[in-house]
Order: sequence, then structure tokens, then C-alpha cells
Amino acid sequence: MKTASIITVGSEIIEGIILNTNEKYICYKLTEAGLKVIRTISVDDDIESIKNAVNYSLNDSDVIVLSGGLGPTEDDKTREAIAESLKLKIALNEELKKAIEKRISKYHRYVPSNIAKQAMVIENAKILENHVGSAPGQLVFHKGKILVLLPGPPQELEPMLNNALNEIKPQPDLSTLSMLFFSIPEAELDEIITSIVHDTSVKIATQASYFDGVRVRLSAPKAKAEELTKLSKKIIELTGEKFIGYGNITLEEAVIKLLKKKHQTLSIAESCTGGMISSRLVNIPGASEVFLGAIVAYNNSVKRNILNVSNKILEKYGAVSQQCVAEMAEGVRKIMKSDLALAVSGIAGPTGGSEKKPVGTVYFCIAGESIKDIQRLFYPQQRNVFRSRVSAYGLYLILKCLSNML
Amino acid sequence: MKTASIITVGSEIIEGIILNTNEKYICYKLTEAGLKVIRTISVDDDIESIKNAVNYSLNDSDVIVLSGGLGPTEDDKTREAIAESLKLKIALNEELKKAIEKRISKYHRYVPSNIAKQAMVIENAKILENHVGSAPGQLVFHKGKILVLLPGPPQELEPMLNNALNEIKPQPDLSTLSMLFFSIPEAELDEIITSIVHDTSVKIATQASYFDGVRVRLSAPKAKAEELTKLSKKIIELTGEKFIGYGNITLEEAVIKLLKKKHQTLSIAESCTGGMISSRLVNIPGASEVFLGAIVAYNNSVKRNILNVSNKILEKYGAVSQQCVAEMAEGVRKIMKSDLALAVSGIAGPTGGSEKKPVGTVYFCIAGESIKDIQRLFYPQQRNVFRSRVSAYGLYLILKCLSNML
Repeated sequence: MKTASIITVGSEIIEGIILNTNEKYICYKLTEAGLKVIRTISVDDDIESIKNAVNYSLNDSDVIVLSGGLGPTEDDKTREAIAESLKLKIALNEELKKAIEKRISKYHRYVPSNIAKQAMVIENAKILENHVGSAPGQLVFHKGKILVLLPGPPQELEPMLNNALNEIKPQPDLSTLSMLFFSIPEAELDEIITSIVHDTSVKIATQASYFDGVRVRLSAPKAKAEELTKLSKKIIELTGEKFIGYGNITLEEAVIKLLKKKHQTLSIAESCTGGMISSRLVNIPGASEVFLGAIVAYNNSVKRNILNVSNKILEKYGAVSQQCVAEMAEGVRKIMKSDLALAVSGIAGPTGGSEKKPVGTVYFCIAGESIKDIQRLFYPQQRNVFRSRVSAYGLYLILKCLSNML
Repeated sequence: MKTASIITVGSEIIEGIILNTNEKYICYKLTEAGLKVIRTISVDDDIESIKNAVNYSLNDSDVIVLSGGLGPTEDDKTREAIAESLKLKIALNEELKKAIEKRISKYHRYVPSNIAKQAMVIENAKILENHVGSAPGQLVFHKGKILVLLPGPPQELEPMLNNALNEIKPQPDLSTLSMLFFSIPEAELDEIITSIVHDTSVKIATQASYFDGVRVRLSAPKAKAEELTKLSKKIIELTGEKFIGYGNITLEEAVIKLLKKKHQTLSIAESCTGGMISSRLVNIPGASEVFLGAIVAYNNSVKRNILNVSNKILEKYGAVSQQCVAEMAEGVRKIMKSDLALAVSGIAGPTGGSEKKPVGTVYFCIAGESIKDIQRLFYPQQRNVFRSRVSAYGLYLILKCLSNML
């Protein structure tokens, strides 16, 4: 299996100003393409740091993917660093320079002179076109190693990496299969899977997140692809409704898909999650066919005046109660005229808890023509973790409800 | 200035399954504490990979912070790798073992035998207590170098890192000052700042994000702290209402703060953002005092039936129009009885655009007793980028409106 290293360049990374989402994306894509990522490195945007990281990676990597440092300014030094590391020449490509200038003049009145820097090409490198921004990438084949230079902005990097992988065509000798589960502890799922996998060439990786659930990746030598599919079916048998879907599916994607399949419309009344459940659903293209909208009833006056939650219930049981979520769900279902409705009300903290209902308490209600299911859960965690978990569980409840439908 | 390297351990990182949020946190905290982070590395959880990364980092780093691989299972090899790298002994600490067992038995019926592994301590290491989970950290002082071993779960790592930094007490010889700006291009802001900073010992770092705006960090030798403050005031003079606040402030935090200061309440009607603006506001503790709620009017029926947008307007001008957002804002303000209301309607794509209103078109309206401001913007970008930008600009509009109030 060919090995790969990733080097991301930028002071904003090593100073902790931004999350390194490019690194995750590149790791995922290279692994998917059948390369073994052995290391990622992030360094400052100076020539010595980049050269040091490249030379270190050349020791044990067949492929090195770099991102960042391809812009037109003083700070952009990746091209020069690679040329120095590999002892290759670098020169202005006049044709490329003209193409970049032409591209920029479409959007801007004048073309800055420093743009020529982006047309400096390493000896024998293949140019990777940038259809989004101005900085082209470069692909260098050198003494059995492949170096891929990509720009930093994700919207430019992502399509370019895919093009580069098509050029490289690594031969994946691994077959992989991913699955998403919810409402099952990672350790329990791991135990179930381990108990049925007896082939030591099948590798199991699990990863739990409050926002998504538990992702499982099974991998095995290419020849065993069918075996993986059979295994996955056995796992689904043993986990039942905890299985959400194959591949990179998310909870919200599964909800929209199933709503469409069952021809059901949905509305939501949210309190503590403040619109997060709704926002997750709207992120799925085509959500508008089945998702009508939401009421974020953060203040009790909104619960009363818009969702028609009675004063009596708010006074007697409080806003975080099974009675209140039931009325919220019925209220939003009625005014949005949806088939199904989900309501959520909880105490995110840091204040607002009581002995009977401590911070972390949350009620869910899912309501339909002839359905009403109310649940109480307890997630005593920090505010943003609480909200992620509640939004995920709310989506899961919708899925469960839809799965039991005819 | 002392240098630092960070090593994060875990196959889920290099396979691109999770975002490396620990790395960002550690980078930020070390930089803040006055260390110069020169490199981050992520590797798989095997002994050779960890040793290789540690030996490489020992060449040029005074401090090495590692996270992950301190659990009780076979996969957890960081302790052993460090001991081997430094050629130090590692032994079971009976007292620590008892403390871990005692802690676990509080929450679980039986204590697994593999837990003893977490009580293996490197020669002369100082134990870092874990008040959240079971894996203790370790602090190793060795031949002028400091190694900090931290567990992987963020809620365990974060308080432990802060304790470790208190032990290490790096002497920050830098004074830093951060500021957030919005609605100004990064390059323009950079030009403004560069034009007034003549002292070459003052370093400027900018970082732009669609979700947050442009963050600027000014740093200078400790003795020049006052100068930085003066500089920041000059920058504010030149940028006016583009300046949002000092430190790690976010747009949503600024909105909640200013609403409280001005004693104003707010409600929101969202279409294309689907609850994202509301969700961002609710993430701020104490938002409930001033933020009443939101209507996510994703489907036109909701705009009509709940927000009272007239059929005539929807038919004549469409849901993405200045007329529609004006009625949405007035509608939500009326039914939520808030002082101010924001309405947003746009075309996130990938479909739904027209020649006059292509994908990326968005209208905003902010309405109050005697205020009505409508704006049209164009963000022709992918769905999630579009939604981030729209939510950020919506928050900014609220700020602008509040700033001009008495």
C-alpha cells in the first residue's frame, strides 16, 4: 500500500486561529483512494519550516500533499520551498501568467502585478487548473515520489484534489465500507461487531460524535469486498433501528430521504436548541419538498402566543415538561399544517436547573395524526454539547417514528 | 522565545474521520501562553510512529505536547512510546492505580482489569490529575525539554492543559491584542493597519472567515503593550462600524450584549438560513433575556399563514424579494411582540435561481418601531458557505441597527 503525508502551511493553523478542515478533507480523500496516510504536519509559512517538513516526509512517503502558500503575496512560499527541497528549477510560465491575468480581469478592474508569482512553475510539474480562484496547483513527479501542491481555500482545494487523485490513480488494494449508527454506545457497538468478525484481515474503526452518532468503517483486502457487505448485513440484523445508513450519510440526510419516501411533511418547535434542528435539515438540498419550517419558541411568550401552549400548563408544569412539549408539537403541527411535528424543550444551562429538573434535562414530543410519543432525556453537559446531542436525538426520533409507519 | 511542537495521536485523525479540534485548542493556548508553536504532527496510534514524531520534534522544540493514546486498551501506546524515546523507565504506580479504581467504582459496578495500564508512570514524571475521566496526564521534565501527555477527549484535555501550563509557567515575552471586524475585505483591513504600523516589532496576523468576519491579532514585545492599545484605537477610528469587538468575541455574542445594553428584544424570520441565525444567538448563555424566538418560514405556506405575507406579494414579487422580507420582518415582529425583527430570504441553490435572481441572491430586512432597512446581497457560493455568510451578515445588520439607536 502506498504511503502518504500531508503538509498544511499557514500561521493561522499553528497559532490556533482556525480549525484545520483541509487536513481532515485531504486525509479522508486519500484514505478513500486507497493510500495509507501515515502523518500530517502543519507548519508556519516560512521556507525553512516547509523544507524541513518536506524532507522529513520524503523519508517514508510515496505521496506528499501540501496545501496553502500558493497565493501571490510575500507570505506564499510553498512553490519555492518544494523546488529547493527537490533541487529543481522554478521558472515563470508565460502562458499560465496570461491565463491567470485573463481570469482575474473578468472580475476586477485591474490586475495586480504580484499575480505573476502564481505563474512560477516547478521544473517538469503538471499544472492543476483552478476553476474557482486564481492560484493554480502543481503536480510534481520526482524520483518515484509524487508531490501535490494545492491552494488553501477549501472551495479551490477540494475539486483540485479530486482532479489530482484522478491523475495519480492510486491502486486501492483495500475495500472499505462505512456505516452510521445512533443511540448505541460506541463500546457496545464495537463489542457486537468484534463478536461476529473472525477474519483478522478485516479492520474495524469506530468513531463516536455527539452531533452525528457512531461511524463504523470496515476495511479488508480488495478481494473480500463481498464479505464486507455480508458482514454489514449481519451487523444491521443485530443493531436493528440503531442503524442509520451506509456511506457518509448524516442524520439530517436520512430524515429528509425518509420523509420523501413516505410522502410526509414535517414541522418543528424548538426551544433549547434554538433552531439547530431546523438548520441541520435545511442544509440538505431539496429539504424544502418535505420540511415546512420551524418555530423557535425560546421565550415563553412565543410558546403561549404562537404555539398556543396554555398558561395553565406553563404555570403548573413549566416550559420543560411533557405537557408543554406535547402542546408545542400539536401547536406547530396545526399552524404549519404538517403531517408530523417534533417539539423539544430543555434546560441547556449554565443556570435554570432545579432539583427535579437539573440542567441537562430535555423533553421531546413527536406528534402526527395518530401518533404521540414523549421522551425525557438527561444530558448534563456543557451548553454546546447539550445542544448537539439534543438536536441529534430529535432527528433520530423523527427517523424512528417514520420507520414504524406504513 | 521557547518553541513548542504538538503531536496528536489517533487513526481517526489521519484517516480523516474527525476534525482535529484538540490541535487547534492546544495551538491557541500555547501561543497565548507565550510559546512559539513551530509545528503540529498527527500520527497513527502505533509505537514507532509516535516515537518517530517525538524524536523529530525533540530536535527543535523546548516543549512537546501530546494528546491521545492514554486510555486503557491495546491501542493506547503514548506512555510507552515516550519512555522509549527518552530512554526512561516506566512502572506501575500503585497509589495512582487505587485512585483510578476508586474513581471508576463510583460510576460503574465493576472495574475492568485493563485499567491498571493507566497507572503506568514514566520515570520522574509528575502526574496530572483528571477530574473528568479516568486517564491521568503526565508531565515529564527531561534534559531541558518538557513533555506534556494529555488524554484525547476534549473535556478532559482542556482543563488538564491549563493546569500543565500553570506548572510550566512559560514567560510570555509577547503582548497580544485581538480584534474582530466585519464587512471589510481582509486585504483592505490589512492595508489600513499596515499604513499606521511603523514599528517593525509589531506583528500583524489577519484571518478571514465567512462565519465570523476578519480577526486581527497584533503582537509586540511585552514592553509595548500600551502601544498596541493605542494602535488598536487608531484602527477603530479608521474602520468605524466595521469593528465588532476585542478578544475572542463573536458576532452573536456582540448582538446579545448590545441588545441587553440597549434594552431591546429581538425576533427573527428566517427562510434560506433555516434557523442558523437563531441557533447562533441561542448558543450565547443569557440570550433568553433579549432574544424571544424565530419563525423558520422555509415553505411559502408558513410565510403566508404564520407571518401574514400576502398572496399578492408572493405571486407578484416572489418569496425572495424586498417586499417579501419586509412583510416577513413586520409579521414576526408583530406576533412575537419584539422591539426589533430581522427577516432573511434567499436562494441557497443548487437549484431555484433565475436570470434576475440567480442562486446566491438574498434579501435582508431589519424592522423596528420607526426603522425599516432592506438590503440585497449576492453570495454565489456553495450552499453551506452561502448560509454561513448570510447568517453572519444578518447578525451584523442587527448590530449596525442597534449601534445607530439612542
